[in-house]
Amino acid sequence: MSRIDGRTAEQLRPVTIERGWSKHAEGSVLVSFGDTKVLCTASVTEGVPRWRKGSGEGWVTAEYAMLPRATNTRGDRESVKGRIGGRTHEISRLIGRSLRSVVDYKALGENTVVLDCDVLQADGGTRTAAITGAYVALADAITWAQGRKLIRAGRKPLTGTVSAVSVGIVAGVPLLDLCYEEDVRADTDMNVVCTGDGRFVEVQGTAEAEPFARDELNALLDLATAGCTDLAALQNKALAATLTD
Amino acid sequence: MSRIDGRTAEQLRPVTIERGWSKHAEGSVLVSFGDTKVLCTASVTEGVPRWRKGSGEGWVTAEYAMLPRATNTRGDRESVKGRIGGRTHEISRLIGRSLRSVVDYKALGENTVVLDCDVLQADGGTRTAAITGAYVALADAITWAQGRKLIRAGRKPLTGTVSAVSVGIVAGVPLLDLCYEEDVRADTDMNVVCTGDGRFVEVQGTAEAEPFARDELNALLDLATAGCTDLAALQNKALAATLTD
Amino acid sequence: MSRIDGRTAEQLRPVTIERGWSKHAEGSVLVSFGDTKVLCTASVTEGVPRWRKGSGEGWVTAEYAMLPRATNTRGDRESVKGRIGGRTHEISRLIGRSLRSVVDYKALGENTVVLDCDVLQADGGTRTAAITGAYVALADAITWAQGRKLIRAGRKPLTGTVSAVSVGIVAGVPLLDLCYEEDVRADTDMNVVCTGDGRFVEVQGTAEAEPFARDELNALLDLATAGCTDLAALQNKALAATLTD
Amino acid sequence: MSRIDGRTAEQLRPVTIERGWSKHAEGSVLVSFGDTKVLCTASVTEGVPRWRKGSGEGWVTAEYAMLPRATNTRGDRESVKGRIGGRTHEISRLIGRSLRSVVDYKALGENTVVLDCDVLQADGGTRTAAITGAYVALADAITWAQGRKLIRAGRKPLTGTVSAVSVGIVAGVPLLDLCYEEDVRADTDMNVVCTGDGRFVEVQGTAEAEPFARDELNALLDLATAGCTDLAALQNKALAATLTD
Amino acid sequence: MSRIDGRTAEQLRPVTIERGWSKHAEGSVLVSFGDTKVLCTASVTEGVPRWRKGSGEGWVTAEYAMLPRATNTRGDRESVKGRIGGRTHEISRLIGRSLRSVVDYKALGENTVVLDCDVLQADGGTRTAAITGAYVALADAITWAQGRKLIRAGRKPLTGTVSAVSVGIVAGVPLLDLCYEEDVRADTDMNVVCTGDGRFVEVQGTAEAEPFARDELNALLDLATAGCTDLAALQNKALAATLTD
Amino acid sequence: MSRIDGRTAEQLRPVTIERGWSKHAEGSVLVSFGDTKVLCTASVTEGVPRWRKGSGEGWVTAEYAMLPRATNTRGDRESVKGRIGGRTHEISRLIGRSLRSVVDYKALGENTVVLDCDVLQADGGTRTAAITGAYVALADAITWAQGRKLIRAGRKPLTGTVSAVSVGIVAGVPLLDLCYEEDVRADTDMNVVCTGDGRFVEVQGTAEAEPFARDELNALLDLATAGCTDLAALQNKALAATLTD
Repeated sequence: MSRIDGRTAEQLRPVTIERGWSKHAEGSVLVSFGDTKVLCTASVTEGVPRWRKGSGEGWVTAEYAMLPRATNTRGDRESVKGRIGGRTHEISRLIGRSLRSVVDYKALGENTVVLDCDVLQADGGTRTAAITGAYVALADAITWAQGRKLIRAGRKPLTGTVSAVSVGIVAGVPLLDLCYEEDVRADTDMNVVCTGDGRFVEVQGTAEAEPFARDELNALLDLATAGCTDLAALQNKALAATLTD
Repeated sequence: MSRIDGRTAEQLRPVTIERGWSKHAEGSVLVSFGDTKVLCTASVTEGVPRWRKGSGEGWVTAEYAMLPRATNTRGDRESVKGRIGGRTHEISRLIGRSLRSVVDYKALGENTVVLDCDVLQADGGTRTAAITGAYVALADAITWAQGRKLIRAGRKPLTGTVSAVSVGIVAGVPLLDLCYEEDVRADTDMNVVCTGDGRFVEVQGTAEAEPFARDELNALLDLATAGCTDLAALQNKALAATLTD
Repeated sequence: MSRIDGRTAEQLRPVTIERGWSKHAEGSVLVSFGDTKVLCTASVTEGVPRWRKGSGEGWVTAEYAMLPRATNTRGDRESVKGRIGGRTHEISRLIGRSLRSVVDYKALGENTVVLDCDVLQADGGTRTAAITGAYVALADAITWAQGRKLIRAGRKPLTGTVSAVSVGIVAGVPLLDLCYEEDVRADTDMNVVCTGDGRFVEVQGTAEAEPFARDELNALLDLATAGCTDLAALQNKALAATLTD
Repeated sequence: MSRIDGRTAEQLRPVTIERGWSKHAEGSVLVSFGDTKVLCTASVTEGVPRWRKGSGEGWVTAEYAMLPRATNTRGDRESVKGRIGGRTHEISRLIGRSLRSVVDYKALGENTVVLDCDVLQADGGTRTAAITGAYVALADAITWAQGRKLIRAGRKPLTGTVSAVSVGIVAGVPLLDLCYEEDVRADTDMNVVCTGDGRFVEVQGTAEAEPFARDELNALLDLATAGCTDLAALQNKALAATLTD
Repeated sequence: MSRIDGRTAEQLRPVTIERGWSKHAEGSVLVSFGDTKVLCTASVTEGVPRWRKGSGEGWVTAEYAMLPRATNTRGDRESVKGRIGGRTHEISRLIGRSLRSVVDYKALGENTVVLDCDVLQADGGTRTAAITGAYVALADAITWAQGRKLIRAGRKPLTGTVSAVSVGIVAGVPLLDLCYEEDVRADTDMNVVCTGDGRFVEVQGTAEAEPFARDELNALLDLATAGCTDLAALQNKALAATLTD
Repeated sequence: MSRIDGRTAEQLRPVTIERGWSKHAEGSVLVSFGDTKVLCTASVTEGVPRWRKGSGEGWVTAEYAMLPRATNTRGDRESVKGRIGGRTHEISRLIGRSLRSVVDYKALGENTVVLDCDVLQADGGTRTAAITGAYVALADAITWAQGRKLIRAGRKPLTGTVSAVSVGIVAGVPLLDLCYEEDVRADTDMNVVCTGDGRFVEVQGTAEAEPFARDELNALLDLATAGCTDLAALQNKALAATLTD
């Protein structure tokens, strides 16, 4: 049985990772998972938040947002509403935690990197695309900081790579990397964040319709692990290319 | 090796479920998991939010909050700050989703139940205690609504029971139901929400310090499943008692 | 003529003052005036707000809030609404002023005590119960601070005791300590805060329905003064007991 | 002993009540108590808030604010801060309650009057000047509404007059109508709102420095009652003049 | 063809500039353009915002607001709404820029002047009246600061005078200084801010109904330039009078 | 004398107008003026705001925002700050007014179009690029609405075209379409919005440093008018191409 867009169950959508998208940011990536497009910028500043000053350690944080018409129906701007919604908060926190899992704060030194992940177009999997793209932007920002001697010579602030993918059970079948139409029909939806060496950073599974059994969970984890391995390869390939400014 | 408080790795803290705590609410429970104490009230109102009117279906939602001095150090009130923090949002959403997983909206009819989970004292596991207590408050509120004929005779709005527990890996050892001191030392922290029949509603695992491997994940899921089974038994026992007003 | 709950006009509801309710707070009291239950915690921190630094004087402040289902009908959370209502502000300010009236800032030294008064269940007189309970929590917090040498030996930061009670004219009869049902039927409602030696700290009388004459005011003040004397005795008795941690 | 500005203890400051100040408002008064100047406008709209619709009864409410430089030192605008402070809330509520005490809602019919009291210059007693001036603006607005037939012929929405004054104990002496310099030096500060027939609508006494005894309270109430009688005469005199538009 | 109020097309409304209106502010002006009345106060404080510290230069800023019943229909308070509207922001920024155009920051030294322009009554042209009045308040505040030696002897912080006027095309005819009724009927509306020597500080023209041609723009600029010349003369005349405190 | 980027004084930067950028929006354009890139989406909904219901007329409005790292230094998100800044408000209002100047509300019928202009990368002239791009997105959205029969056959909601450009005086020389580096050095900065037939919709000139004379204003208006003519041609050319979905 093939999927809406002709993929097999264990196949990612076409993934593109366009580095150096912005002329201003220290790292910037336009990542796409199919029709989902997220602009990830990494902003480096010397110094750390007050509660961390003098520790010799750096900090990495993230903010996620959607443009109002990234989705099929226009959503109100959170700036106009005057507050950030629960979903936005939750995803921003997830992205931050995911990236911090591969950062050595000591090696980073007292520098802060802010990852901004703005969804320009949404078609499911915006948070996983954001994590996958933000890692590449972070890597470029760290290279930039090393070039500027903000980071001491020989120090490696990144301890590994990190990527993320969604999986879910649709009509009884476990599927990798759900697009929006699959996502709304899923009984179970899971977002998995893995390091490049195949370990888990985050596992967030939700029974959207029907509670799920242990063997279903296992099938989803298998799919996700394989998907993240593929994404890690794409990240490495993107980073291997020379970035011309 | 015994734990800080003398428990074995697979042992819950002493759990108490005190029904009928409030004279006003349609359902109310003071739940404690050791020193963690959460007041859960269920408020029933006829009618549903606007987007659901005329559907014949009900709605269940939840709000979580901490008293400012529930914790070791006083936290600023979110009402004074003028905004709800990301963590509060995230937990409120988790509690709501967890309870909705065992609700049959059609059977509930166009009624709304709001679960308020206010942490009076925190010692780790506040969200899992909240879910476990809120289920009991919800059950009482539904019984109340049935008595008032707000729900049609013969309808069963609850399709099962739901409870939750935290698990984590501390110093390499998987432990059930972490208290605060264990929680801060955990490498991996996972909250698991299960139905009474042993299926998963939510699985949220986070590598606090070190990414975790598949076998560690499996060990944590085993612990959590067993813990939720114990909690379901405690919920049923509490609900079996006669509630004298 | 006896009252709804069988009391005489000049009788308080059953009052309980449970010290040491919280394991975290430096002082904590669960106070009840009949079915009104307020959790009062006192949090001590070294240092004072910026505008007071270097003065050698301490500071005491208070925050009052209600749980959403403390009342018969659920109220929206002020944290969710994003602003604190006028009533909350007004009562927080009243509690703070009342407690400061018995504090010697010089003796307290540059320490701050925050009193949090959270209404768990409301049945009239929440602000007066809060003041009465908060005084006891404050006294315990100061004892704690003396034990930690935050306060210099021999200094007595408390210059007296303070308690509060509501009075009102219901169907032409002046009554002490109104419960909710009496409160809504009162023509005149007054909250009186007294020191243990019978002097006034606050007198706040409001004509809810009908302006009141001088002799009615006098009758209410007589009732309130006697009620506060009783409350002061209960506070002293509670504080005389040994607090086992 | 004479006061800072040469008055006797029981003397009001020069009071002016200038009606018809605004060309837009249905009632408008620029009231001054010495150097305290408050612009009070009364805005009439047909209809009432939702919770009162269909009751046949009207509504009266008030909002109080200070211009940023009404005081000796510039204060930040509450609109810029994005929230109204506790003091503003408290005074707005006091003014609203005070005016409602002389309103017959049935006679008013389903009309709403909003009293805006904006302090243009402050020198103590801004809330009492606001109440005193707002009453006159309200009276003019009701006359306007009667002329427009918004109020049924023969109905009298005002059941009496209302005015307010501050009193306090300064250096042991009870004084009427405190100016700012006296106010900051007062041990006890009381605001009293009276009807024209000498009954009390609000009595709000606060021990700023030292708790006060019953006889001090009595002396203050005597002073305030006499002061309100004088203010009622001034209100009546102002309203007796013909208002040329 | 004469206008609603009998003026010719190129005639200002009666303009009054009342200095020394407030006893507290360092400079204060009640300015009226016909029925438009704006209270402008200038508050001087030593020191500058953080981003300007150590520069040796001063700062001038402005805030504009309307009383709720300054207009024909009552508007909600921005403090109550919890946010400042776009129009308020825009006008505050315009006033600030206009006044800064005639300030020599070096001569002002590290002092800040805040201009508060509160519209007490509105009848069109509130922003232009505010700029015209605020200049005079600023001039008085600077004189005050010179008297206090906050500004070094011989320094002249004001490099010129500034005033503003509205112009518009109503029924095909270019008119100076529109009142509210003309303003709502205008096809094109322009606010022009000029220095006393006839140069432009701001030109803000908007096609309210119909785009306008170059020759219409020229006619409006001619009118505005002449109007500002008249206003500059009135400002100078007002400032020439002795200000008795 | 040539400019920083080699242009002549009266030359636009390279302008690109990419239609159909978004798969969701009814009209969408990625517009660039040199390195300034703005994503403009037009969202069509049936119905109009409440105040316009039943009028038979439509509504067009706009919201402008910048991504946090669109600029050289990262700016805080307005959604996180909880309020929209004055500059954002002002530009959103300008864009809305500009587009409404070419809309026939009657022909549009009771439909609403919201233009979202999100700056992805900023290098001066973001508001003028936004207006120029938003017009094209609006045109596409109207074509879409005509195809869906939301607009009656034969009706033409657009009465003309509209575009915008910045001009300024840098080092004494009037220049067209300032890039960021020129903008910060400009003595005078003007944004001009023109219809395709050469009339003015908005003229907003500001003396950033030095007030400007009438002949300078004339030179700037000449430059801007010519620039807008060029932009109108580019808009028409872009719209003449077939949009393949």
